[in-house]
Amino acid sequence: MTAIHPVILCGGSGTRLWPVSRQALPKPFLPLLGEETLFEQALARVADGAYFAPPMVVSGAAHAELVTAQLGERPGARLVIEPAAKNTAPAIALAAALLPQDAVMLVCPSDHHVADRAAFRASALAAAALAREDYLVSFGIAADRPETGYGYLRRGEPLAGGYAIRQFVEKPDRPRAEAYLASGEYSWNGGIFAFRAGHLLAELAAHRPEMARLVAEAVAGGHSEGARFHPAAEPFAAIAGESIDYAVMENTARAAMVPADMGWSDIGNWAALADALAGEADAGGNVARGAVDIAGCSDVLAFTDGPRISAVGLEGVCIIVSGGEVLVTTREGAQLVGKLPGASVP
Amino acid sequence: MTAIHPVILCGGSGTRLWPVSRQALPKPFLPLLGEETLFEQALARVADGAYFAPPMVVSGAAHAELVTAQLGERPGARLVIEPAAKNTAPAIALAAALLPQDAVMLVCPSDHHVADRAAFRASALAAAALAREDYLVSFGIAADRPETGYGYLRRGEPLAGGYAIRQFVEKPDRPRAEAYLASGEYSWNGGIFAFRAGHLLAELAAHRPEMARLVAEAVAGGHSEGARFHPAAEPFAAIAGESIDYAVMENTARAAMVPADMGWSDIGNWAALADALAGEADAGGNVARGAVDIAGCSDVLAFTDGPRISAVGLEGVCIIVSGGEVLVTTREGAQLVGKLPGASVP
Repeated sequence: MTAIHPVILCGGSGTRLWPVSRQALPKPFLPLLGEETLFEQALARVADGAYFAPPMVVSGAAHAELVTAQLGERPGARLVIEPAAKNTAPAIALAAALLPQDAVMLVCPSDHHVADRAAFRASALAAAALAREDYLVSFGIAADRPETGYGYLRRGEPLAGGYAIRQFVEKPDRPRAEAYLASGEYSWNGGIFAFRAGHLLAELAAHRPEMARLVAEAVAGGHSEGARFHPAAEPFAAIAGESIDYAVMENTARAAMVPADMGWSDIGNWAALADALAGEADAGGNVARGAVDIAGCSDVLAFTDGPRISAVGLEGVCIIVSGGEVLVTTREGAQLVGKLPGASVP
Repeated sequence: MTAIHPVILCGGSGTRLWPVSRQALPKPFLPLLGEETLFEQALARVADGAYFAPPMVVSGAAHAELVTAQLGERPGARLVIEPAAKNTAPAIALAAALLPQDAVMLVCPSDHHVADRAAFRASALAAAALAREDYLVSFGIAADRPETGYGYLRRGEPLAGGYAIRQFVEKPDRPRAEAYLASGEYSWNGGIFAFRAGHLLAELAAHRPEMARLVAEAVAGGHSEGARFHPAAEPFAAIAGESIDYAVMENTARAAMVPADMGWSDIGNWAALADALAGEADAGGNVARGAVDIAGCSDVLAFTDGPRISAVGLEGVCIIVSGGEVLVTTREGAQLVGKLPGASVP
C-alpha cells in the first residue's frame, strides 16, 4: 500500500474564539481540548507511518515559528510558507505541486477536533482508495443537528467506500437544514479532502487556469530553506483567492464523498467548544478551566488565564477571561464574537 | 425649632457587593451612584444647617480614616469609634449617651440610596416631631414590590404625621409579602429612626438593662481625641450585640412610624444597584461603567475597573470586574454573592 500524504492547512485568523484566540496566536496553536493543541492533534491523527507519509504543512509566515515549534522532531515533515493568504485552493495547489504527482494527498484543516481517531483513519483510507481511482473526495461529516453554519454535501450514486456527490449546498436556512437532516441524504462539508496531486492540478488547470498558472510560477520561482519552501511572492500575490470547493469541487465531474462519523467539530465558536468538552462537564453541564467558582449554574463554560471567575445562577453562558479581556456571551451570541470590537485588535 | 442631630452608622462588612465592596473598602465608601459615595450622600441629606446639627458618625476603627477623609471639612462633626462591632443597638446607644439628653437624634445607615432628598427631609421632620412627643419612630419605607429580604412595619392608629406601629414583621415568605403589598398596611423597615436621646436610653435601660449599663460604662471610661470619641473597650466588648429593633423597638409601647416614599434602596446586591441606576440605562436597559462593549443584551449591568468587558446576547445579568476578580451573576443569583468563596477574602 502506498502511503497517504497529509497536507495540513494552518490559515485563518481565528477570531471566533477571541479573546483566547488572537491573530498572533490563533486557534490551531491553542490547547483548547486536553494537553495538545488542535494543530498537534491534527498531526497526531496522521502520525502512523504504516498509513501516512510525513506531513506537509501550509502556513503563513506569521505562524511559521509556531508551526515549527509544535511540529517538533518529525523527520521528513515539510513546511510551505504562503506569501499571502489566498484561501484554500491556492494553498492546496502549492502542496500538490510539491508532491509526487501520483501521490494521494489528504488535506486537513488544523483547527478542527476529531474525537474518534480510528473512524477518521477509516474514512481517510476509504477516501484515498477513491482518490486513486481519480475521484476528488470530500469527507461527508455525519450531521447530527440542523446546523445552518456549514455547507452540505448531497449523496448520489454509491461508489466503493463512498458516494458520488450529487449536489453541493451553501449554508442553508433553518427549515432547509431541518429537511436535510430528516432526509438522511446530506452530510456536512468538513473541509477534509483526498486527491491524487496530479489530478487535482489537472482539474485546477481546467477550471481555474489562471490560478493554476500562477501557482506553477510561484513554485518554479520559489526556493527551499531546509524543510521550508518559500513560493515566489509576486505570482502568488496576483492570485484571486478562492476556496477549493468553489474553484474545483463544484466544477469537477469526479466529485465523491466518504461518510465520516468521527465526533467532528470545527470548534467554530465558544458554544461549539463547550459541546466538544461535554465529557469533562460537572453534573450541571458546566465546564471550567482555571480559577472558577460556580454556584447554581448549568451549561456554563468558564475559562480563565488568571483572575478568578465567580459565576452565579447562569444557564448556557460562556465566560472567557484571557489576556486582560473579559467575554461573557450566551451560546447563541457566541457566533457573533468574531465581530466584536475587541476581536479586531491584534 | 431645635435642630435634629444626625447619627450616621458606618458598620457592616458589605460583601454583598463583592468584588467591588470588600472588608477593607465597604459599600458606604464607594461611589456606586454618581460621583459621591453612599456615605457622602448620607451626609449630604442631613447637611442643611436650617434643620440639622452637625453629624455624629459611629464607625469601627478599621474605617475611621475613610470616614474622616470623606467627612471633609464639617465643623462640629464628631466620630465615635466602636471598639467592636455589636450591631445597631449599642452603636445607637453610644451616640445617645454622647448627645444632650433632650436632643432628637435621627439615625441613618450610611449605605443606602435615597433618590428624593426633599421627601427624606419631610419624613425626617415628621419623625422628629413625633420623637419630641416621646415616640420611638421608624421610617416606614413605601413598599413597591413583594420583597422577601426586608422586615415590615404594620400601621396602627394614626398619629400626627405618622402612625403607631401595630406590628413588627420578620422577613416574610413570598405569598405573605404579596399579601402585605396588596393590603397597603405594611411598609419596609428601612433602619432609619428618630428618638429623643434620653428617651432611647431610658427604654434601653428598661428592656436591656445589662446593655444600657455596659454602654454607660464604656462612655464613662472613654476618652476624646479632638473630634473623635473612643469608648472604653472592655465594657463594650462584654455587650451581647443586638439590633435596635430587637432590643428596643419591638418592646416599647411607644413605637411609631412615619411614611417615607423617597426612592429608597438599600443597594443590597448588584441587582438592586442596577435598579437604582435605571436612569442611566441605554434603550435595552443596560448600564455600563468602564470599558464595556455590549451587543444584543438587555438589563445587563457591566462594571469594570480596567479589563474590557464584552457582553453578547445576555438578559438580566450583572458582570462585575474589580481588583482581579470577575463576577457574573443573574439578578436572582445576586443575593448569593456575599456567600461566594471570593467574597470572604479580605
